[in-house]
Amino acid sequence: MLSAERNRYLCQTGPGTPMGALMRRFWAPFLLSSELPEPDCPPVRARLMGEDLIAFRDTRGRLGLIDEFCAHRGVSLWFGRNEECGIRCPYHGWKYDVGGQCVDLPSEDDSTGTRARIKLKSYPCIEKAGIVWAYLGPPERRPPEPALEWCDVAPGQLFVSKRLQENNYLQALEGGIDSSHVSWLHGAALKDDPLFKGSRGNQYNEDDRMPFFEVEPFDGGLLIGARRNAGSGRYYWRITPWIMPWYTIIPPRAGHPLGAHAWVPVDDENCWAWSINYHPNRDLSAEERAAMIAGKGIHVTYVPGTFIPDANKSNDYHMDQQAQAAGRTFSGVARIAMQDASLQESMGAIQDRTRENLCLTDTGIVMPRRELVRAVKANAGGNPVKGLAAADQKVRSAAIELPHGVNFVDGARHGLFAEPKSDPISV
Amino acid sequence: MLSAERNRYLCQTGPGTPMGALMRRFWAPFLLSSELPEPDCPPVRARLMGEDLIAFRDTRGRLGLIDEFCAHRGVSLWFGRNEECGIRCPYHGWKYDVGGQCVDLPSEDDSTGTRARIKLKSYPCIEKAGIVWAYLGPPERRPPEPALEWCDVAPGQLFVSKRLQENNYLQALEGGIDSSHVSWLHGAALKDDPLFKGSRGNQYNEDDRMPFFEVEPFDGGLLIGARRNAGSGRYYWRITPWIMPWYTIIPPRAGHPLGAHAWVPVDDENCWAWSINYHPNRDLSAEERAAMIAGKGIHVTYVPGTFIPDANKSNDYHMDQQAQAAGRTFSGVARIAMQDASLQESMGAIQDRTRENLCLTDTGIVMPRRELVRAVKANAGGNPVKGLAAADQKVRSAAIELPHGVNFVDGARHGLFAEPKSDPISV
Amino acid sequence: MLSAERNRYLCQTGPGTPMGALMRRFWAPFLLSSELPEPDCPPVRARLMGEDLIAFRDTRGRLGLIDEFCAHRGVSLWFGRNEECGIRCPYHGWKYDVGGQCVDLPSEDDSTGTRARIKLKSYPCIEKAGIVWAYLGPPERRPPEPALEWCDVAPGQLFVSKRLQENNYLQALEGGIDSSHVSWLHGAALKDDPLFKGSRGNQYNEDDRMPFFEVEPFDGGLLIGARRNAGSGRYYWRITPWIMPWYTIIPPRAGHPLGAHAWVPVDDENCWAWSINYHPNRDLSAEERAAMIAGKGIHVTYVPGTFIPDANKSNDYHMDQQAQAAGRTFSGVARIAMQDASLQESMGAIQDRTRENLCLTDTGIVMPRRELVRAVKANAGGNPVKGLAAADQKVRSAAIELPHGVNFVDGARHGLFAEPKSDPISV
Repeated sequence: MLSAERNRYLCQTGPGTPMGALMRRFWAPFLLSSELPEPDCPPVRARLMGEDLIAFRDTRGRLGLIDEFCAHRGVSLWFGRNEECGIRCPYHGWKYDVGGQCVDLPSEDDSTGTRARIKLKSYPCIEKAGIVWAYLGPPERRPPEPALEWCDVAPGQLFVSKRLQENNYLQALEGGIDSSHVSWLHGAALKDDPLFKGSRGNQYNEDDRMPFFEVEPFDGGLLIGARRNAGSGRYYWRITPWIMPWYTIIPPRAGHPLGAHAWVPVDDENCWAWSINYHPNRDLSAEERAAMIAGKGIHVTYVPGTFIPDANKSNDYHMDQQAQAAGRTFSGVARIAMQDASLQESMGAIQDRTRENLCLTDTGIVMPRRELVRAVKANAGGNPVKGLAAADQKVRSAAIELPHGVNFVDGARHGLFAEPKSDPISV
Repeated sequence: MLSAERNRYLCQTGPGTPMGALMRRFWAPFLLSSELPEPDCPPVRARLMGEDLIAFRDTRGRLGLIDEFCAHRGVSLWFGRNEECGIRCPYHGWKYDVGGQCVDLPSEDDSTGTRARIKLKSYPCIEKAGIVWAYLGPPERRPPEPALEWCDVAPGQLFVSKRLQENNYLQALEGGIDSSHVSWLHGAALKDDPLFKGSRGNQYNEDDRMPFFEVEPFDGGLLIGARRNAGSGRYYWRITPWIMPWYTIIPPRAGHPLGAHAWVPVDDENCWAWSINYHPNRDLSAEERAAMIAGKGIHVTYVPGTFIPDANKSNDYHMDQQAQAAGRTFSGVARIAMQDASLQESMGAIQDRTRENLCLTDTGIVMPRRELVRAVKANAGGNPVKGLAAADQKVRSAAIELPHGVNFVDGARHGLFAEPKSDPISV
Repeated sequence: MLSAERNRYLCQTGPGTPMGALMRRFWAPFLLSSELPEPDCPPVRARLMGEDLIAFRDTRGRLGLIDEFCAHRGVSLWFGRNEECGIRCPYHGWKYDVGGQCVDLPSEDDSTGTRARIKLKSYPCIEKAGIVWAYLGPPERRPPEPALEWCDVAPGQLFVSKRLQENNYLQALEGGIDSSHVSWLHGAALKDDPLFKGSRGNQYNEDDRMPFFEVEPFDGGLLIGARRNAGSGRYYWRITPWIMPWYTIIPPRAGHPLGAHAWVPVDDENCWAWSINYHPNRDLSAEERAAMIAGKGIHVTYVPGTFIPDANKSNDYHMDQQAQAAGRTFSGVARIAMQDASLQESMGAIQDRTRENLCLTDTGIVMPRRELVRAVKANAGGNPVKGLAAADQKVRSAAIELPHGVNFVDGARHGLFAEPKSDPISV
């Protein structure tokens, strides 16, 4: 249970907030590269941590992320013309380059020096893994590029999607590191879904619904170990890395690609749920890729022309109470991603954590909250923050059976901090 | 005319408000029994006096009305599994019985005692007359079950519907006890509607549009008498009982079933308009029942899958200005229930009573307001409140011709406080 | 750039605001006469400067504009019966004449004097140019009727439309007097639109995109001169009169009818964009009129049954990014009126002028803002206000080539303050 004040402290990410300051230290994934498919293509509206921005790709292919509104009279540059290395406001022709610098101010003689003084807020962008990432923090503290394992695999080994989730990032993130709900909410889906089925781990999840959690720090954040009985003196460990500030990796299931997420604030009441599948040492199969496109596994299908899931709050997520009663789904909502999203959105746009009652199986979310608070304070105090260095991000999830008494990080170290291109350690 | 403060005092019914405290002393009708048709059927969202609740019927048929949100992490139990005598949150499997008690907390060893300490807010429910009623007040002050006449007739003698009205309960209630508008708003409809037509009273209503009101107290609330000329030394009296806090009964028309209402706050800007037809000593005919289902009389037809009338605010109630000009309707809106609802909603979500101008024919709404204020104060002071006892509710409406000089309660007493199963006294 | 306070001062027009007080000194166009086509036709909801009103035409053809809500219980008189020289509330039959006076109060004996005391707020209306105008100011200060040139031409010479624009009046007005955006936003449309094409001025607009502005006062407001090069020692002047408080006239193009606007606050976040074409000395041709009806020139087409453009904010104005890329439109939005409206709405419901950066070409909007502030203060101080007298409004726009060194008002005086029925001075 949190105080209302502590809850706001953790949830608010707009300009000027402490958590916003922490998050602005990191590269934030916010667009699919395919949303800006080619030079001079139409700009895209991008709201990120409460800031209204416009993203575009200029004639030379450079990415721009600048204030949505023209410095002149406040017109949205979404209507702008993206041409000749800049975006031109259609009202009076003011033009900005990817750095937000006004490069043409046709309303005034250039001798006045006005043009040079006009500069929109802008943020650097990079592309990795088919994603456009932005850095909204202080220029002098720009971190190295993201080095998550899935950023560095070949395109054939990777599938990335995003969807809008209509609630605060934190309750989505807390779902991503919460292994205990898997036994309940996803039980039926795990047996059927082509991207999850066929793992012995699913049976352990079903048989032991009261996992014991241990949480261990590492350079990038926390390793959250969920321990279940696996019979004959052994435990089944599902180990979920939480990499600061918003990355999680699902413990693997035998043979399947790994699944990862990023939970990035659009504003305080919406977040991007990035869903990534990758395999470290093989291409995804045609069947796997087709399933991902079809909204299986951690992916969804959409309202056409948007990143809003077609099963969403406005239609009660196509709740099917007959399917629920028959046990075909546990909550009545189909598909794994929307099973999570529906419940997380049902908590309210920002969960009221003054009313929660946490228990032992919530250790895996209590510790990350503390870590977030610590990091916010460290950042405010000018002290080092975890997860910024490339090395911090070199971690993988693992699922492993270990004898009683073995520390899960020790026992799974070869899987967690694995050689590149090695197979995931899974069950 | 009320002060803004007095208006709020009368209209606000949320937790902690004085009027809310009064209303919480009474059983509140909030669901049709058919919304919870059988044991272990899907739960139903129920917002009542500003509280978000979930109603369900457990395996043994018992009714539960509990906090909508799981005590654990705040997930809506609308997604819950209703099974084996409790509703189970689909996120981590916490389960609650009809009393809100957590009966299964699989995330933690039961030896910790946590489970026993987890209890959601819950309210007792009963069923009567095809309705589920809730009691949201202090347990030690739970009143006897509702004993309104329509609660005790055989199912064949009764028809009950509800609709959502998008305004504060008070302006709906004030419509229910306002006999004077009948001459105007419903004039045309009364002649055609199969559940209203054919009464000599309709003619009196039309001929004398300036009724004189007398209001008399009785144990359950007030009897509101509206007096119109009936020729030759006689008055036509329409007597509407208002039974605390939200029940009204329409004065009968010869031979037709009686019509009653309950105006129950969903929150301060919405109310349930319960519409009940019953006959004390005969079954409703097949024709009558068919008319009620077809939205005649005081009933409506709906947006499919909802209790929102299909003619509603979003479509201007299917206003037909040609029908209005031709006199087929007085306001342009068809059907009696929506004629009332459309005008009451047009007053705003909460009528601004600082701008009203009441006159003599509003005596019938002035006195109930005063009575409500008295009752709120009595309740706050620990003093008795009208309408709680079963005997208080044994009253009926009446329509009667009486010689000049006869007090309406005296003259109609045999109809107002009638023998069970006797015919209504009507004209 | 304005302070937040100054921006509110200019934008807020509700009752009790300084700007609202100024605007209430003027006749405000708010309905098409065709919205009240005949005596006793249905009333029309009219929100004007934040006041909710009902307009109706009584049996004798008189116009009424009164409080939307019945003085009795607050029912919307939009449901009222318009009959026998008054509008009758359908709830209890209270009836009001065009002056807001209660003329029938059937709920009470007239001997009580209540009826005579009941009077709804009402405002005088007049009709001119197929428009209903209201005066919301103090009765003793009622100005003469509007005498704009387009008010006095024959019906065959005039075409009037209105559309709802979903933003504050000021950013719409500022668009109307801003000649500099024409070179950019409307460049492509000017060449094709049947009501704009074929003027040499269009070429000057395209060739010189940095007009120099001069602003001169006149009795009705300001004359805003935009000067562009026309070669060989000559300037092309586009002269836009801004007539207090909300009228603008587009500089003419050779042979075409004149185009004028009124930007009238519905409330602080919406305004009526009145669009008027007229020719001072000839009838509009059938082709011209057909084009206007088809939404060409400064007109639009609508969501059926409304004055909301069919291309609107909810559908991103049917933005066509391919047409934009191909140069068929500059902003991607088709049609001149919606090119303006889309950008002005994109600034937000009320533009945040604390973030703007004005430059030389904005002289034409800086001066009117100052003039508005001056007028608000003059009005508050009881001093004379421009634009109220009929003579103040006798002005026209002009487009003219003048030799260098000639003052634009002097050089175009014969066109600006022209003889009635004379041809516009245009290029």
